[in-house]
Amino acid sequence: MPAEIKGLNEECGVFGVFGADHASQLTYMGLHALQHRGQEGAGIVTSNHERLFQHRDRGLLSKVFADPAELDLLQGDRAIGHVRYGTAGRNSVENVQPFLFRFHDGDTALAHNGNLVNAVSLKRELEDEGAVFQSDSDTEILIHLIRHYIKEDGFIPALKKSLNRVKGGFAFLLLQKDRLIAALDPNGFRPLCIGQMDNGAYVVTSETCALDIVGAKFIRDVQPGELLIIDQDGLHEDHYTEDTQLAVCSMEYIYFARPDSIIHGVTVHTARKRMGKLLAQEHPIDGDIVIGVPNSSLSAASGYAEEIGLPYEMGLVKSQYVARTFIQPTQELRERSVQMKLAAVRGVVEGKRVIVVDDSIVRGTTSKQLIQMLRRAGAKEIHMVIASPPFKFPCFYGIDVSTRAELMAAHYSVEEMCQIIGADSLNFLSVPGLIKAIDMPDAGDAPYGGLTVAYFNGDYPTPLYDYEEGYRKSLSEQERKELI
Amino acid sequence: MPAEIKGLNEECGVFGVFGADHASQLTYMGLHALQHRGQEGAGIVTSNHERLFQHRDRGLLSKVFADPAELDLLQGDRAIGHVRYGTAGRNSVENVQPFLFRFHDGDTALAHNGNLVNAVSLKRELEDEGAVFQSDSDTEILIHLIRHYIKEDGFIPALKKSLNRVKGGFAFLLLQKDRLIAALDPNGFRPLCIGQMDNGAYVVTSETCALDIVGAKFIRDVQPGELLIIDQDGLHEDHYTEDTQLAVCSMEYIYFARPDSIIHGVTVHTARKRMGKLLAQEHPIDGDIVIGVPNSSLSAASGYAEEIGLPYEMGLVKSQYVARTFIQPTQELRERSVQMKLAAVRGVVEGKRVIVVDDSIVRGTTSKQLIQMLRRAGAKEIHMVIASPPFKFPCFYGIDVSTRAELMAAHYSVEEMCQIIGADSLNFLSVPGLIKAIDMPDAGDAPYGGLTVAYFNGDYPTPLYDYEEGYRKSLSEQERKELI
Amino acid sequence: MPAEIKGLNEECGVFGVFGADHASQLTYMGLHALQHRGQEGAGIVTSNHERLFQHRDRGLLSKVFADPAELDLLQGDRAIGHVRYGTAGRNSVENVQPFLFRFHDGDTALAHNGNLVNAVSLKRELEDEGAVFQSDSDTEILIHLIRHYIKEDGFIPALKKSLNRVKGGFAFLLLQKDRLIAALDPNGFRPLCIGQMDNGAYVVTSETCALDIVGAKFIRDVQPGELLIIDQDGLHEDHYTEDTQLAVCSMEYIYFARPDSIIHGVTVHTARKRMGKLLAQEHPIDGDIVIGVPNSSLSAASGYAEEIGLPYEMGLVKSQYVARTFIQPTQELRERSVQMKLAAVRGVVEGKRVIVVDDSIVRGTTSKQLIQMLRRAGAKEIHMVIASPPFKFPCFYGIDVSTRAELMAAHYSVEEMCQIIGADSLNFLSVPGLIKAIDMPDAGDAPYGGLTVAYFNGDYPTPLYDYEEGYRKSLSEQERKELI
Amino acid sequence: MPAEIKGLNEECGVFGVFGADHASQLTYMGLHALQHRGQEGAGIVTSNHERLFQHRDRGLLSKVFADPAELDLLQGDRAIGHVRYGTAGRNSVENVQPFLFRFHDGDTALAHNGNLVNAVSLKRELEDEGAVFQSDSDTEILIHLIRHYIKEDGFIPALKKSLNRVKGGFAFLLLQKDRLIAALDPNGFRPLCIGQMDNGAYVVTSETCALDIVGAKFIRDVQPGELLIIDQDGLHEDHYTEDTQLAVCSMEYIYFARPDSIIHGVTVHTARKRMGKLLAQEHPIDGDIVIGVPNSSLSAASGYAEEIGLPYEMGLVKSQYVARTFIQPTQELRERSVQMKLAAVRGVVEGKRVIVVDDSIVRGTTSKQLIQMLRRAGAKEIHMVIASPPFKFPCFYGIDVSTRAELMAAHYSVEEMCQIIGADSLNFLSVPGLIKAIDMPDAGDAPYGGLTVAYFNGDYPTPLYDYEEGYRKSLSEQERKELI
Repeated sequence: MPAEIKGLNEECGVFGVFGADHASQLTYMGLHALQHRGQEGAGIVTSNHERLFQHRDRGLLSKVFADPAELDLLQGDRAIGHVRYGTAGRNSVENVQPFLFRFHDGDTALAHNGNLVNAVSLKRELEDEGAVFQSDSDTEILIHLIRHYIKEDGFIPALKKSLNRVKGGFAFLLLQKDRLIAALDPNGFRPLCIGQMDNGAYVVTSETCALDIVGAKFIRDVQPGELLIIDQDGLHEDHYTEDTQLAVCSMEYIYFARPDSIIHGVTVHTARKRMGKLLAQEHPIDGDIVIGVPNSSLSAASGYAEEIGLPYEMGLVKSQYVARTFIQPTQELRERSVQMKLAAVRGVVEGKRVIVVDDSIVRGTTSKQLIQMLRRAGAKEIHMVIASPPFKFPCFYGIDVSTRAELMAAHYSVEEMCQIIGADSLNFLSVPGLIKAIDMPDAGDAPYGGLTVAYFNGDYPTPLYDYEEGYRKSLSEQERKELI
Repeated sequence: MPAEIKGLNEECGVFGVFGADHASQLTYMGLHALQHRGQEGAGIVTSNHERLFQHRDRGLLSKVFADPAELDLLQGDRAIGHVRYGTAGRNSVENVQPFLFRFHDGDTALAHNGNLVNAVSLKRELEDEGAVFQSDSDTEILIHLIRHYIKEDGFIPALKKSLNRVKGGFAFLLLQKDRLIAALDPNGFRPLCIGQMDNGAYVVTSETCALDIVGAKFIRDVQPGELLIIDQDGLHEDHYTEDTQLAVCSMEYIYFARPDSIIHGVTVHTARKRMGKLLAQEHPIDGDIVIGVPNSSLSAASGYAEEIGLPYEMGLVKSQYVARTFIQPTQELRERSVQMKLAAVRGVVEGKRVIVVDDSIVRGTTSKQLIQMLRRAGAKEIHMVIASPPFKFPCFYGIDVSTRAELMAAHYSVEEMCQIIGADSLNFLSVPGLIKAIDMPDAGDAPYGGLTVAYFNGDYPTPLYDYEEGYRKSLSEQERKELI
Repeated sequence: MPAEIKGLNEECGVFGVFGADHASQLTYMGLHALQHRGQEGAGIVTSNHERLFQHRDRGLLSKVFADPAELDLLQGDRAIGHVRYGTAGRNSVENVQPFLFRFHDGDTALAHNGNLVNAVSLKRELEDEGAVFQSDSDTEILIHLIRHYIKEDGFIPALKKSLNRVKGGFAFLLLQKDRLIAALDPNGFRPLCIGQMDNGAYVVTSETCALDIVGAKFIRDVQPGELLIIDQDGLHEDHYTEDTQLAVCSMEYIYFARPDSIIHGVTVHTARKRMGKLLAQEHPIDGDIVIGVPNSSLSAASGYAEEIGLPYEMGLVKSQYVARTFIQPTQELRERSVQMKLAAVRGVVEGKRVIVVDDSIVRGTTSKQLIQMLRRAGAKEIHMVIASPPFKFPCFYGIDVSTRAELMAAHYSVEEMCQIIGADSLNFLSVPGLIKAIDMPDAGDAPYGGLTVAYFNGDYPTPLYDYEEGYRKSLSEQERKELI
Repeated sequence: MPAEIKGLNEECGVFGVFGADHASQLTYMGLHALQHRGQEGAGIVTSNHERLFQHRDRGLLSKVFADPAELDLLQGDRAIGHVRYGTAGRNSVENVQPFLFRFHDGDTALAHNGNLVNAVSLKRELEDEGAVFQSDSDTEILIHLIRHYIKEDGFIPALKKSLNRVKGGFAFLLLQKDRLIAALDPNGFRPLCIGQMDNGAYVVTSETCALDIVGAKFIRDVQPGELLIIDQDGLHEDHYTEDTQLAVCSMEYIYFARPDSIIHGVTVHTARKRMGKLLAQEHPIDGDIVIGVPNSSLSAASGYAEEIGLPYEMGLVKSQYVARTFIQPTQELRERSVQMKLAAVRGVVEGKRVIVVDDSIVRGTTSKQLIQMLRRAGAKEIHMVIASPPFKFPCFYGIDVSTRAELMAAHYSVEEMCQIIGADSLNFLSVPGLIKAIDMPDAGDAPYGGLTVAYFNGDYPTPLYDYEEGYRKSLSEQERKELI
């Protein structure tokens, strides 16, 4: 079952704007800033008050909009866009968002970042009532729910009802010809923020870096359970539920978000640098130089170096010409791409005791390969320090790690991991260290400082619904005991 | 309203096979033989007993399957395919068939040739009940109807119910992992035939030329109201309605079908040659040579020449390198393509009294242009004879002429038409002449020899449903009187 | 050796215009009319008095200029264009013409239809003097020769000298910023004609059908040994040699040229129809119907039918969606394409004694396949009649048949051929019949009525130079005796 | 004249291997490591002892070899490859290297990094002797020279003679079926090194990072005036001239080479870090944080921070999804790409006195834009420090800056520059500081520590030949005086 369900997960980025000329161009720029969140597909839907226009395709944004005329065809001053990270085999254009649904009573476009944990059951229930799904994505469920309720309730009440039916992590953007709607799940798993341009146009998007690129001023983070409606009369703030509790995905801070983004008051680079500093406090290693694994670990590495007082050096060089490993869809591509993209700098590491800072260990393959690389380049000792705790439990809220099979830390102790990857030592940041490094001011009294740290301790903030059974089966005897 | 509805029409070709190795390759060949029925898109869905595989895209078959690997990926011994003729603006891949719908209780693929006259009302009704449509095509309605009825009835009864709800012209092919289903509308507007390969595999397709190309033996035409189910146990013959009456689209004989196809017992080339002969009997013109407009009028022209005893010459040459005019989506493309594709043969027509045989006059643009061409090439006199009656009334059953606005004969008398196109004389075959030329053996006592001749006399064999109002408005006072 | 040399051959089409707005668009239209002469590549070079602009690529014209903007970038009122028929393996863009050579003293573009028989020796000689060739084509030799002579002679004298050095069949077009130049080989193997547009602009091109498409009036055929220079002052007629004798490639009339083209006063369709009539006189067969192999044999078939008094029927249908067999580059493609493109019309041939008229037999594969097809469709008897003599000897002047290995008639008697292809009888037009059918008014006292008939009798009008040795070796004892 | 000549310049990367299985795959990997040296085109030529195989096209390596089958078609154990940086307008495939020249006496492939300063005169001289050039590139001149001398001298002597005729900066790789040849200009402007794989195969390439990626061990830098011939018998070391003097392009250290490459004994990252340190010594600025402009200035920035004792922060984030500014071909693209690729990190710079370290200022546009960006992000003060001297004089040896028109420092004083770009202060590293930072051990007594620093002081190590006149004209009265 987990294997089957796995395919549904996706990490993505969304961008919406209402009330600005060349909305398609702005959305293109916003999506460019979010490209790190998904490289498998991209799309934009705009509206000129009267009609909705769509263009989407597989591949990088620059490929999807290779012909600049495509942007010009997307008319209007309101738009939503999406970049998609999908898994192999289902990467057909039907699954690329925003989806555009045409109805005799008006069209609706939909873009989604997150993952629903009750998608399978909802889909079955809806199909039993006659629903015909056009994609493999769980995103589409929302529109079917809305259409189910719309006749008796009208659109907004139907939407609220529907948002209460879907469970898991979600940041939805909807575009209709006369409004832009944003909704965030009750835990705020995925980041979503709102900003405003000089002309008053509103922007809602996954990360603040997308506000910056279009010159929009940050207003605030969208809150769990919130429903924002933007139309000609401005911004209307509403809620579809009051039963909320902040549990932001800590992975956004650790490696997913861009370092210049600010999530719930915390600059991502700063959080990472603090992770490096706290890591140095928890695990001060005796070495000659500190190096980071480019690009996501450079902040943590400079923090580690600064804290421990060792030179921060460029011991690994990343080619600009391939994508990040984590996001490559197949194992074979992952392996080759490591070879092609990371190079050890002999002139820096030769004869040195090298402290390598990395953000996380998922499968362990990359770590093993870069340690081999550093040894071949003459490093005398290699000490890995990881600026997050061991990644032991899957994510069900929108990151593509939904089975334990591929998580190294789910199967090996730290000592075993150290041996497998071939390091001279291996140490991880603790969960309290992580929480302290992020130090989210919005946390209030939410557990774990307002973060989801279930990846490290198995304590999921919501029931797992359709995933529950498969997840339980994947646990060891010991883990099952501990988690109850 | 007619303008809005217009977009829904399509002429297409379908091909299905059950029980043959390399079903995708055979379907590719079958679709190649049907390519004249649609050049805007093509697709194939196959099944290997377990899963359904799909590939489809916009453009000619050779472009859609430019990479031969695509065919190999379509596994299994059963398949359906589709070539599509769509109109500009809606030519997105979502509208390319076969459609593939995935359900938790099994997948269904669907391909359709025809046009439903109650699509708009059905769609509205279904949407009101929560349906979400993924394409602009009326084809999709069938699957929504089926899913509406399936829970209480099971698939086949639900399908039968659904087939009784949709009105108009249709030849449907459905593929599920364990069966291939074919259904024809109660008037048999669109051709559909069944054949069998040497190994026993069944083939169902729009024209017999597609049977020939894969080496299948013709069994019989599918009959109005019939429902054929082909599975591991063979062919099961059934009906979803008994309320049927044969009214084959006469345009198939006049210009649409391939000359080597046999529809309801009549070889298309032979029918066309007889149209030419009867035309010569009805309108014997005094001239020096007889020429045809390539390619669809060559049979009629040779019939005219043979009957009247004049030399049959090649007075017009068609380039092999562009598609037929009728099927070009925009007016501008139509005009340019005429210039690029038809050339008068000066050495043949210079100084001659030329009798030009054409199959039909739709907008009149082509006729005008070819007469200009022949005059420039030195023809002394140009007499047009048309091997069908004046095309005055739209088709609502699957050919892309659903408004009267563009039909020359709807607005002008024959004399006026002659003057506008610049011919020295213009004559048409009569409706009785057409019926006599086709002389369908299957006709029984069906009106008009088992043909739809509404394009010429306005006598539609079915109510027009959603088109009724717009159609009525398009009629002149005089016509309205005559038709009542 | 023949195998090695084989690759150099090409049949092509050229088009040039001087003094007309949108010269690139006109050239595009002209090349479209010549597309049957080559489908492997296409290109256009234009000039706006100051610069030369080039666009070329592999594939059909419509693909090469798929982006209409490409035509707009080709500025100026003068242009030359080329469609190319090349053989597999060397089909890289470097070989696509027109070639554009940039020199500090001015640029020259070059397009060529034909084949040089002393290309290998000339190339070696030039390389020994330091020449660096950029393509595999023999076309490039001309420019190297010109550059060799230019310093002491100036351009036109150097060109004349060079034209006297190259041997074989050639129709060259050259474009410089201030003039368009055309040159034809001393035997006029390849057709080349000159026409004039209403505004006075001159057009030089391979076939008159390309004059017609741009609305240019035919002036005359370019004569053997002629050198035409067109500049601001008009048309300058010159010769580079007086040692000429007309020997037009008879294959142009038999199957290569378009039926509406007029070559040396003879309309190609008319010549073919007469070949059919003379064939009927030489070989009157007892049958029920006469059918032609579309498209190149339809004229001959109607002539045969008219002469013998039998019905001319459409017994074979050709798909519009694939290219002609002869021109497919590999054997495998040739075989598959026959299957995909020709279909027998069962309703026409079933139970009939069918007389099939074809233009020629090259490898015999096509004939064999179409006879099988007709038998499967129920033909009772199949009598092949060929509207040209047996094709026994290679062409060295520009058609891609330069080895005997692939010529069926080079290896088998007519009786053997009949048996191999599976016909009930097989007959060919005689060489005198062919000459009489074409009946070229320009022939004067040139041997064979001004035609090259070496393909049928081995009597080549020129020495074979680099091909001599290989050709000699390919002859049988008997043939060698006969030819001396 | 300068404008005309400008187009000839190119910065590129070359890679050659002899004696290793899958040479095409290795070359692909090597070129990937060199992709930063050119993104406009890429190509590979291989040989399998008998034939040479070529594939090349415009665009990034990953696009050119998008179809992995292309690599498989390039057979053999020896290969050369090239990545190209070309300027707009001439970016046609004819100019993409390696060039492959086919001769009756054997084929030669050629790849080149550098720029010849006497290309125009040599080309004219060769054309006057009959040469026909196929590209706009000056690279091709070498092969014409060789062919000019080859007949009387044989290949190697002809090559040596030719290498003495061409002037400027060049690193040539030549491939023939039985050998790989490398040659470096007499000043060693461009980097070129030689390495060896475990199986003994030799590799010659522009940077050591390309040795690392294929696992080859560094042997040594190729020396000025050297000619290396690698064949079945191993490596043969030779010289074509003894008149040499080391003058490595300092720009390679400053920004062009990859930080992990080692050029003449100096690791590029280390040199850059020392530039930053020396810059801090020369210009110690009072600030709160030090940031670098990613990616080429990060090493210098960390050196500056370390030396001055301020925190090194990530104040600017670079998107991974666009190419570096310097290398964009048009002004418009340059401007847009700056916006799309660099983002200021508000959380880092807000309210801070920021010291920004950049590697160089060419046009000044980028500096101006990033300062605006930092101000908008809330930086209190912005102090630019540049880790190289003011770039005042063009490069004629292979970097695409060959006119002074676009060099900001050629037209403005440092104070004026500071004002234009809007910084609070602006300071540059001195020439002696630069030389001291690089500190090349191979320099011997070569002037300027074995570097070319003409970009900063106008003291070119060679005569400028064809560029002399244009260059002189571009100087101000004052500069002319100073330089004499």
